[in-house]
Amino acid sequence: MSIVLAFSGGLDTSFCVPYLRETYNESVYTVTVDTGGSASESVLRARSKELGAVDHIHVDAKEQLFEDHLRYLIMGNVLRGGVYPLCVGAERVVQAQQVVKTARRVGARAIAHGSTGAGNDQIRFDVVVRLLADDMDLITPIRDQGLTRQFTTEYLSSRGYAVPAETTRYSINDGLWGTTVGGAETLGTRQPLPEDAYPHSVSPFEAPDDPALVRILFENGLPTALDGNSLDSVALIAALAKLGDAHGVGRDIHVGDTILGLKGRVAFEAAAALILITAHRELEKIVLTKWQRFQKDQLADFYGLLLHEGQHFDPVMRDIEAFLLSSQRVVTGDVTVQLYRGNIRVQGCGSPYSMFDTGVATYGEEPALWDGKDARSYSKLSGLQAYLANKVRRTR
Amino acid sequence: MSIVLAFSGGLDTSFCVPYLRETYNESVYTVTVDTGGSASESVLRARSKELGAVDHIHVDAKEQLFEDHLRYLIMGNVLRGGVYPLCVGAERVVQAQQVVKTARRVGARAIAHGSTGAGNDQIRFDVVVRLLADDMDLITPIRDQGLTRQFTTEYLSSRGYAVPAETTRYSINDGLWGTTVGGAETLGTRQPLPEDAYPHSVSPFEAPDDPALVRILFENGLPTALDGNSLDSVALIAALAKLGDAHGVGRDIHVGDTILGLKGRVAFEAAAALILITAHRELEKIVLTKWQRFQKDQLADFYGLLLHEGQHFDPVMRDIEAFLLSSQRVVTGDVTVQLYRGNIRVQGCGSPYSMFDTGVATYGEEPALWDGKDARSYSKLSGLQAYLANKVRRTR
Amino acid sequence: MSIVLAFSGGLDTSFCVPYLRETYNESVYTVTVDTGGSASESVLRARSKELGAVDHIHVDAKEQLFEDHLRYLIMGNVLRGGVYPLCVGAERVVQAQQVVKTARRVGARAIAHGSTGAGNDQIRFDVVVRLLADDMDLITPIRDQGLTRQFTTEYLSSRGYAVPAETTRYSINDGLWGTTVGGAETLGTRQPLPEDAYPHSVSPFEAPDDPALVRILFENGLPTALDGNSLDSVALIAALAKLGDAHGVGRDIHVGDTILGLKGRVAFEAAAALILITAHRELEKIVLTKWQRFQKDQLADFYGLLLHEGQHFDPVMRDIEAFLLSSQRVVTGDVTVQLYRGNIRVQGCGSPYSMFDTGVATYGEEPALWDGKDARSYSKLSGLQAYLANKVRRTR
Amino acid sequence: MSIVLAFSGGLDTSFCVPYLRETYNESVYTVTVDTGGSASESVLRARSKELGAVDHIHVDAKEQLFEDHLRYLIMGNVLRGGVYPLCVGAERVVQAQQVVKTARRVGARAIAHGSTGAGNDQIRFDVVVRLLADDMDLITPIRDQGLTRQFTTEYLSSRGYAVPAETTRYSINDGLWGTTVGGAETLGTRQPLPEDAYPHSVSPFEAPDDPALVRILFENGLPTALDGNSLDSVALIAALAKLGDAHGVGRDIHVGDTILGLKGRVAFEAAAALILITAHRELEKIVLTKWQRFQKDQLADFYGLLLHEGQHFDPVMRDIEAFLLSSQRVVTGDVTVQLYRGNIRVQGCGSPYSMFDTGVATYGEEPALWDGKDARSYSKLSGLQAYLANKVRRTR
Repeated sequence: MSIVLAFSGGLDTSFCVPYLRETYNESVYTVTVDTGGSASESVLRARSKELGAVDHIHVDAKEQLFEDHLRYLIMGNVLRGGVYPLCVGAERVVQAQQVVKTARRVGARAIAHGSTGAGNDQIRFDVVVRLLADDMDLITPIRDQGLTRQFTTEYLSSRGYAVPAETTRYSINDGLWGTTVGGAETLGTRQPLPEDAYPHSVSPFEAPDDPALVRILFENGLPTALDGNSLDSVALIAALAKLGDAHGVGRDIHVGDTILGLKGRVAFEAAAALILITAHRELEKIVLTKWQRFQKDQLADFYGLLLHEGQHFDPVMRDIEAFLLSSQRVVTGDVTVQLYRGNIRVQGCGSPYSMFDTGVATYGEEPALWDGKDARSYSKLSGLQAYLANKVRRTR
Repeated sequence: MSIVLAFSGGLDTSFCVPYLRETYNESVYTVTVDTGGSASESVLRARSKELGAVDHIHVDAKEQLFEDHLRYLIMGNVLRGGVYPLCVGAERVVQAQQVVKTARRVGARAIAHGSTGAGNDQIRFDVVVRLLADDMDLITPIRDQGLTRQFTTEYLSSRGYAVPAETTRYSINDGLWGTTVGGAETLGTRQPLPEDAYPHSVSPFEAPDDPALVRILFENGLPTALDGNSLDSVALIAALAKLGDAHGVGRDIHVGDTILGLKGRVAFEAAAALILITAHRELEKIVLTKWQRFQKDQLADFYGLLLHEGQHFDPVMRDIEAFLLSSQRVVTGDVTVQLYRGNIRVQGCGSPYSMFDTGVATYGEEPALWDGKDARSYSKLSGLQAYLANKVRRTR
Repeated sequence: MSIVLAFSGGLDTSFCVPYLRETYNESVYTVTVDTGGSASESVLRARSKELGAVDHIHVDAKEQLFEDHLRYLIMGNVLRGGVYPLCVGAERVVQAQQVVKTARRVGARAIAHGSTGAGNDQIRFDVVVRLLADDMDLITPIRDQGLTRQFTTEYLSSRGYAVPAETTRYSINDGLWGTTVGGAETLGTRQPLPEDAYPHSVSPFEAPDDPALVRILFENGLPTALDGNSLDSVALIAALAKLGDAHGVGRDIHVGDTILGLKGRVAFEAAAALILITAHRELEKIVLTKWQRFQKDQLADFYGLLLHEGQHFDPVMRDIEAFLLSSQRVVTGDVTVQLYRGNIRVQGCGSPYSMFDTGVATYGEEPALWDGKDARSYSKLSGLQAYLANKVRRTR
Repeated sequence: MSIVLAFSGGLDTSFCVPYLRETYNESVYTVTVDTGGSASESVLRARSKELGAVDHIHVDAKEQLFEDHLRYLIMGNVLRGGVYPLCVGAERVVQAQQVVKTARRVGARAIAHGSTGAGNDQIRFDVVVRLLADDMDLITPIRDQGLTRQFTTEYLSSRGYAVPAETTRYSINDGLWGTTVGGAETLGTRQPLPEDAYPHSVSPFEAPDDPALVRILFENGLPTALDGNSLDSVALIAALAKLGDAHGVGRDIHVGDTILGLKGRVAFEAAAALILITAHRELEKIVLTKWQRFQKDQLADFYGLLLHEGQHFDPVMRDIEAFLLSSQRVVTGDVTVQLYRGNIRVQGCGSPYSMFDTGVATYGEEPALWDGKDARSYSKLSGLQAYLANKVRRTR
């Protein structure tokens, strides 16, 4: 019998390898699901072996992350609290899915992860694992036994294993859709992160004096080319992140609600996500009707909420995705964005489906589709119900 | 008998003064309602007199603009399309109200405005005037007779009146909540405005190397002090605009839906609005529950839509305002914001009502309110419905 | 050149035939689009000929009405104001579409309808005709010239045409999805319609002592069989209407908002619609998650609003339809309904996708998926945010 | 030290009295909070004494139930799944509040309830108790130890206490806002309840041949008189329930989502709730604007969801209540309803704030506020955006 462990190489999951092996007397497989992080496969593999795992499996799930999640987050312009592009929540769902898949492949009887009982990830992992693998055990030693950092450190040391050094003051979660950064400052709400705590991007203060322009092509709501060069989704996001990082865009801090109901603060850098959503939102403005925009925003906010809370598999998510897909049929066109010292500024956009430049009417010009008398009549009738409502209210 | 004319001193409303007097053979009063614009009262008064108005009335309605509209736009974090702070729509409602009030005071039989049949303002004016003054005539010569710029220019010239020069390539609407700028570029969607077309703010490229920090105090959702100095609302907004303008923040372009259904593009600079909403939104994140945030955002988006469309007097707006007011009881605290070359970056915030720092639990730390087993149980049950839904879907 | 006239055989459209011919000196085609009404094709054809039309075209659009509209109204359980199944609004869209199609076929240059300027139908017709035929003229004499009943009566009489008798005190609109009834009582809100004003159904007071049971099979949200007999959609609705009418179900009165903003009251009988929606809603309760139900209800209410207002062609309607279709994948099963003297009472339902009877847990029984400690933990955490919110509010 | 136990006199809470006393060696107080149930205070008091409680406290909370909950459920026309008036959820919140209040008064150190781990009530109780009394212990023996009916029966018998007989096949929850009934049929979804399982109402089949008419006066959204007789809220509801029960109205079955995510089915009779909501909804139709109705329905559905789930104390509920209160300023008037063999049929209504009968315009009549040309223009412009949207979609 064997156990498959979601493995990051950090203290908690390093601890779990010998702990699971000794406690359950079973083989332990480690799995790392790459959703865009910077961890080295060979380092992880070596570490896994050192810790006594029977094998290490590395799964590249960046494509899946895009297909299952990021494309809908773009279509929905999903920014939690107006700023945060849901960097982490989607990754966890994909990681849990791939861990289950791996467990089935190696014939494991149980799945383990190293989450504590405090945060969001435990719930996202648990929900997906139970849903996809209700026939397997779910083992979470750190959480269930409330193990401390001191305990796990000593456990590893006493057995002669290296203990991952706390090399930085900040805990980093790297992924395709952005990087989150936690530190002493994010344990309160009063302080910003120091500029040098962000691992990939330069500070707006140190960004180049010369702005960059980038033209993004969207087809059916999804980015397909940068400055005329077609790129697959994962490569496009990576290229855009590199460009944005160089110009200091995409850094911010967000306070959100954890799934358990606490407030949590997180710093992040997510240049690609913010550039893409800014551009996509602009393109939509010229091709969607006001009611499409209105309903889409309302649904997308809810979609982000449920994804954040680990509820990706609620079928309402499929229904909202169907709505989003339908709305994107005309979201084809290009958007030019200027990047300059932290600013993402839309310069212009165009679309074959633009309702702006239809040759029949332009805002502020003489309209061809109606005349002043029509407009006067429209005004009269568009105010009718409020007129009546106020009339009866006033006269009583 | 007399007519009261909403007067801006531009070509169209200048034309209206002699036109109305001659056409209807009645006295014409001009009224300018100051909602934060930069037009000079004495210049307007002189111009009105020159054109033959019987009197010019100047109304300062900045306070009313804040009380009736801006405070709710702050409470609701209202940004149309994610960017535009509804600079103009609210002004028109207040202006129409004050024109009606003036008309009642001078005993006029009719109200006139100089809007064309193309844009939003005609509808906003009409709706309010009819609602508040259904006993008065509403005269709109430019629109009803489709008068051209050439016609009105010649009309004025032929009678010896000065014709307002087109001094700039850009049409500006100045107000307390921001300034909109239209020009050749905004007749399409492909080009940005040149940086020097913005009248008040400096360009991010020319802003100071040193950032500014400003600490904004909010009480019950409304800003009451900057860096410890209490200011009334209008003065606070003006001071913040000045600061923001100096640092190049608040410039953007938005494409929206006009009331009549066309797309319209508008450039704007609205430093105060954007700083206040950014700060206010952050403060809310630490004091409101997730469902308050969710419902408030949905309602506020609708509120902005109706205000944009001139429907301020629909009683649903009063109901939404009641919701907003209720939600703001705890939105008291301070937010520090950094302004730097176009960037508005929240540094930190705090509130006596913060749910973040409660002494009972902090995200990422060992929780005092529950243990790992509780969290495990919560995970199990929070995924139950999606589990069942997928189970029945899979097995068929 | 010719004109195509939407023709009902009533006073107004009868008037239009000679009026259009004489006024425009063109051929007039009459078109009647059958959306389930009881008007006789041969009577209409004879009448058209008598009035001098060059041809009468009869289009059966019941199937289209179902495909384009009714199936989404069922999927969305759309009842305006909780009671009214949108009998008329959808019909008008289909009728306008078919009139345009006919106009194209006969090569007409204009489309005419006989609506007055008071109601909803003029707008529904106009919006669709302009959208589908902006190259054709739209002629609406009754409305545009404000013609009175007296005028049109005299016009017909003076030319020797028969004038349709006002045979009843009630104006009836018959259709597949229900029948609306207007009369003196519906001009106010204080009186009900007399029971004998409803043309098809018996009164609950006169319905049989013995109830009827009917078992409705739904597949992917749509009804496909009654009591085991497969029927196409149109036949199924007709059969169900007949059964319901016999048991006095489906009569009600609704006050709604007209598109122009007035209040309007309408009596209706719509047994099939009410039975189907009651049954469908019940079936959904066992197969959809709570969030599917929640979002679906919110979207469907908006969908009904826009359809009512003639906005069927706003693309947001397609997006909502995509959501609805997605949600209905599992809405397969059967519902048994009892009909008795006006009552529609669900007896029971079942589905292969039922989340109720999953063999893993039943409400009120010992749960297999969790134990009491899990539930206790869940309670603790599910109340956490409200706990924190109230804690900070209380202590200040 | 002492424990306060929420006491119904049933098997589980009877068991708790000696169990708590013996297990914790403390005094046990029993509390019954009357929210409209039919349990006899003297019987409960005697039973409590027999079981060894140190005292029994009876709290009449019907007035509070109305003030805190029912009035908002009326204002919001809250019917879960279109049918169920949330009979039980609100009661539990009030009961938990009063139990806490009692515990404080007697100086207890702990609160106990007898809920199992399967249903909704445990969560509603827990959430409120923890929120209001985080300084007290919360003891729930049946749930925490998974005690069976057999165990509790033997526990009571072995100590010589009477065991409550299972006198009926149905478990009943009686309250002011309705009565729920559970039985073998509600453990599945296929069978209806037999008509004689409903404890208070007659069957529609056995109701009188003659209908009843009742005129309900509403002031600011709340019912204040029946047929001209002013009644306080609790008495009015009781009187209306009696009348409705006699005419067989208010019986139905609902399938809903339990808080833990299962499906649950419940039969109920709730004549007063259904009559009041039917009447109130009708009155609103003549005094509210379409957007008030729209937003109110959306918020009220969410309000019902959160109340159902025990989240009454989330501050978003206060915000929604503020919205509701604002909307009800004009919901004053009377509604006449006919009750007949299960049918609740609105006959008519009127209000001093009616927008229907304003003397300026009536649906279907010649409008005084606009003419046919205005309507034509309105049609043209109201379809403009969909026209443009379809134009660009078609031509590509």
